[in-house]
Amino acid sequence: MHGSPQRLGDAFRVAPGTSVRLATMDPGATLGFDKDAARDRTAADLDRLEVLQETVWAEHRHRILIVLQGIDTAGKDGAIRHLMRAFNAMGVRAVPFGVPVGPELAHDFLWRVHAQVPGDGEIVIFNRSHYEGVLAERIGELVPEATWARRYDAINAFERLLAVEGTTIIKLFLHISPAEQLERLRARLADPAKRWKFRRSDLRDRERWDVAIAAFDDALTRCSTAEAPWYVIPSDHKWFRNLAVGTIVADAIEALQPAFPEPEGLPADLPLS
Amino acid sequence: MHGSPQRLGDAFRVAPGTSVRLATMDPGATLGFDKDAARDRTAADLDRLEVLQETVWAEHRHRILIVLQGIDTAGKDGAIRHLMRAFNAMGVRAVPFGVPVGPELAHDFLWRVHAQVPGDGEIVIFNRSHYEGVLAERIGELVPEATWARRYDAINAFERLLAVEGTTIIKLFLHISPAEQLERLRARLADPAKRWKFRRSDLRDRERWDVAIAAFDDALTRCSTAEAPWYVIPSDHKWFRNLAVGTIVADAIEALQPAFPEPEGLPADLPLS
Repeated sequence: MHGSPQRLGDAFRVAPGTSVRLATMDPGATLGFDKDAARDRTAADLDRLEVLQETVWAEHRHRILIVLQGIDTAGKDGAIRHLMRAFNAMGVRAVPFGVPVGPELAHDFLWRVHAQVPGDGEIVIFNRSHYEGVLAERIGELVPEATWARRYDAINAFERLLAVEGTTIIKLFLHISPAEQLERLRARLADPAKRWKFRRSDLRDRERWDVAIAAFDDALTRCSTAEAPWYVIPSDHKWFRNLAVGTIVADAIEALQPAFPEPEGLPADLPLS
Repeated sequence: MHGSPQRLGDAFRVAPGTSVRLATMDPGATLGFDKDAARDRTAADLDRLEVLQETVWAEHRHRILIVLQGIDTAGKDGAIRHLMRAFNAMGVRAVPFGVPVGPELAHDFLWRVHAQVPGDGEIVIFNRSHYEGVLAERIGELVPEATWARRYDAINAFERLLAVEGTTIIKLFLHISPAEQLERLRARLADPAKRWKFRRSDLRDRERWDVAIAAFDDALTRCSTAEAPWYVIPSDHKWFRNLAVGTIVADAIEALQPAFPEPEGLPADLPLS
């Protein structure tokens, strides 16, 4: 219906069992699209997403969880803004996960995450997620290796629970190059309207790029499953990132074939005709 | 320190891998205790529990989860009342789980349970629990077999998560005989102060006793693990149930060797002496 019969997301899905090495994957890839060619399709996907979300909410049956991860400036906020152009706030929530604090630290790492998963008819977008337990907390050495090392199994079991009980899980890793990140950090500092966002810690993953990439590689390798696949989205070009994110999310929801429900107990002799 | 060197709970713990058959286990067992002999020990255990709970709360390190299950009238409320004689409400919560309703039904069966697990320093007592997903929901045919059958693995993964992140899990199954249950249901109906508690559904498990026992057997067999063992407590005698519950909980907490923390940053020249 849209584009080639081969779905665009197939090019980016991490097949279970694949050993991911981000260093070998091109963050600047555009699959032959240029910005102009992408525009129509991106708009068409937003139209699809608008109807799909309205249907999912009305049907109150499917649960959709979109997980966004990526190094700082990779475009997680931008991807959410893009999707929210199509979505109605009724039935959709975007949930950010920062460094765990207070009562979050007093519980297991999935506690705060489980509380926020989508219910029937909901689409929930995680801006960072339970993966921080094997990413930021590993990279920043906030927890010892013995702790983060056992979390992969816990994550897979948690996602399996969600999946078998009716949640569609779409995990999007936004992949950018070191050069593109440098460019974006410079732009952030140069813009008076964005400079306030800059924090010293923004440079942490950059300073430990190899450590960060190893953590990303492990998470993508160990936690891409049939029921909760990871997609690695080339994100150096924001327009291509939006195209890919919109298409993948729309295709995943469309595959559920959501349908508007019939009103219940409609009398046969409704005096409307 | 209390009683024989062999801990009383060892007699009731379901070793992982054991195939439990409740029909072969005596709900009237008292391990040679009589009511008088039990009194002193039960009181001593409550004294232990009082100090232990205060220490756990002060130390803010361990998380204690006590799960109570049993057929209707088995004594779950009585066991909680007994423990709460020792516990301070600050740091302790008793959480009942009824038939899932509303937003609970709109999520996976562990969602409402995960939200209530103990944080650092807390003791939480579940009056019924996530096991309802393989007990009441199975026995009452509220969910199809395909659904409850896959929940055992989810339960074990969930409890493993809690355990490895620092939760001590004590699961107590209160075991009574059909004759004792009949007696208690009759007493409930005869007492004007208790009659209001009676509901037709109280008879459901009784009417399907074999189905209920099969569900209990499966849960105890498949979900008694090293990190989260089940104890089958002979509960026909309330005084023995209280003795066993108090001793098992006290022993489990004592094994953690909780200790009052030192105040931080105490100046060396504190003018108190």
